[in-house]
Amino acid sequence: MQAVMTAEEMGAWLEQVFPQVKDDFVVEHVDGVNTVMRMMVQDRHLRPGGTVSGPSMFALADVSAYVATMAIIGKEALTVTTNCSLDFMRKPEAGKDLIAKTQLLKLGRTLSVSNVLIYSEDSEAPVARANMTYAIPPRKS
Amino acid sequence: MQAVMTAEEMGAWLEQVFPQVKDDFVVEHVDGVNTVMRMMVQDRHLRPGGTVSGPSMFALADVSAYVATMAIIGKEALTVTTNCSLDFMRKPEAGKDLIAKTQLLKLGRTLSVSNVLIYSEDSEAPVARANMTYAIPPRKS
Amino acid sequence: MQAVMTAEEMGAWLEQVFPQVKDDFVVEHVDGVNTVMRMMVQDRHLRPGGTVSGPSMFALADVSAYVATMAIIGKEALTVTTNCSLDFMRKPEAGKDLIAKTQLLKLGRTLSVSNVLIYSEDSEAPVARANMTYAIPPRKS
Amino acid sequence: MQAVMTAEEMGAWLEQVFPQVKDDFVVEHVDGVNTVMRMMVQDRHLRPGGTVSGPSMFALADVSAYVATMAIIGKEALTVTTNCSLDFMRKPEAGKDLIAKTQLLKLGRTLSVSNVLIYSEDSEAPVARANMTYAIPPRKS
Repeated sequence: MQAVMTAEEMGAWLEQVFPQVKDDFVVEHVDGVNTVMRMMVQDRHLRPGGTVSGPSMFALADVSAYVATMAIIGKEALTVTTNCSLDFMRKPEAGKDLIAKTQLLKLGRTLSVSNVLIYSEDSEAPVARANMTYAIPPRKS
Repeated sequence: MQAVMTAEEMGAWLEQVFPQVKDDFVVEHVDGVNTVMRMMVQDRHLRPGGTVSGPSMFALADVSAYVATMAIIGKEALTVTTNCSLDFMRKPEAGKDLIAKTQLLKLGRTLSVSNVLIYSEDSEAPVARANMTYAIPPRKS
Repeated sequence: MQAVMTAEEMGAWLEQVFPQVKDDFVVEHVDGVNTVMRMMVQDRHLRPGGTVSGPSMFALADVSAYVATMAIIGKEALTVTTNCSLDFMRKPEAGKDLIAKTQLLKLGRTLSVSNVLIYSEDSEAPVARANMTYAIPPRKS
Repeated sequence: MQAVMTAEEMGAWLEQVFPQVKDDFVVEHVDGVNTVMRMMVQDRHLRPGGTVSGPSMFALADVSAYVATMAIIGKEALTVTTNCSLDFMRKPEAGKDLIAKTQLLKLGRTLSVSNVLIYSEDSEAPVARANMTYAIPPRKS
């Protein structure tokens, strides 16, 4: 599969469609298969004790799978998450950004399926794993 | 199973351990099996178009399963989410609160498992379904 | 939603499309929302120790969600499972059939979503919980 | 992490604890992180049309995660599956074995988490993805 948008174009698109989260995420890499997103962890993402909250990690996984899908099908606002499964495996390191590495496993006629691994920056053991399914509108061919 | 906390006690406990979300959630009902939580939907929970965001629905499911578990084991801050699966099935109605009805399916020695159905207030068809697993510290018996 | 097939018609249909499992499952109840299936547990479903195997419980959940969906849309062989999540919560009782109670949560244009609770017969605590998503062909309206 | 059993030792152990499936699976590779299992697809695994059945793919994912976990903790019969999520993405090719590539994401004190990708032999696009969580007995350290 071939990406139709660069990381820069994707970042600009995200700012436009999700203005409320534009200070949270950076699109670091996009190609037809792999996507890397950074979450700039801030106080509002934390739980007492310094752990990144579950909803914040969900948000990172969700936007990562969205970007992985958009990279192939192009700007398409009607795409919606239909299913996710998440495993929280380790406590994120305090004071570190989170890095999400996403592999697009399938892009079918109506569904996209992605696998996301989330890491504390510079760590090798993932803090969380997510699987995201998006429903996509039928594409013109 | 028998609840050891009332809805009021639970609400007070939530305000204490999750002060950042105390304006979002109300504990409406707690007993040994079923829990009802309300999410007071506000602008910060919305996506463009007026839909409640995925992370907000995740947060509602997560806190609901936490409350369902705490109701039985009592105040226990070390409980952590280990797994969730979520289906997003319908678009929430604009301008309505979300109501989460949670059934505690299992409370074992180290895991609790809950099933959560999320509704727009006054609607019969669920907007989302979640399954949450919490790891709980071994309890003194 | 309104069922278009009775439990008897559904049983006959299952025998025809899944002849290899017709000795395993009985359709006990079908209506537009709830479905009850029985798995007649036999030696080939067991693991050492007398526990019903995971694949057997998966098969029960899968056929239950299939039946719940077919009950509304009618005989439709092209329906396929796209996603499942399963929690195994308790050890099934030895020598008891399994009973699966399925609630159809959504029947959309292209997806059906079901929630399945599996019990050892005559027990109140579920041994497993499953969530099944089926892709269904677009229906004529 | 370091494997404490070879692929051959693991195959012998499987034959002993799961004699009923010993003709179905071959342990092809085991190390501390990655595991490769082959499912020798036979008529009894098929659905009408030649597709490998869902329960058969579940069984392959389940045994793969079991092997990935045993490779580190050693022979431990009390390990049980607690959760799985599965995405069925493509129809397996007729007449081909299935190959499961498993990555052990976490081996904690009480839980192991694995990610499994299942392929038709010689194909690059996965037919299914599974995430398996096993509860493991506390280990002596």
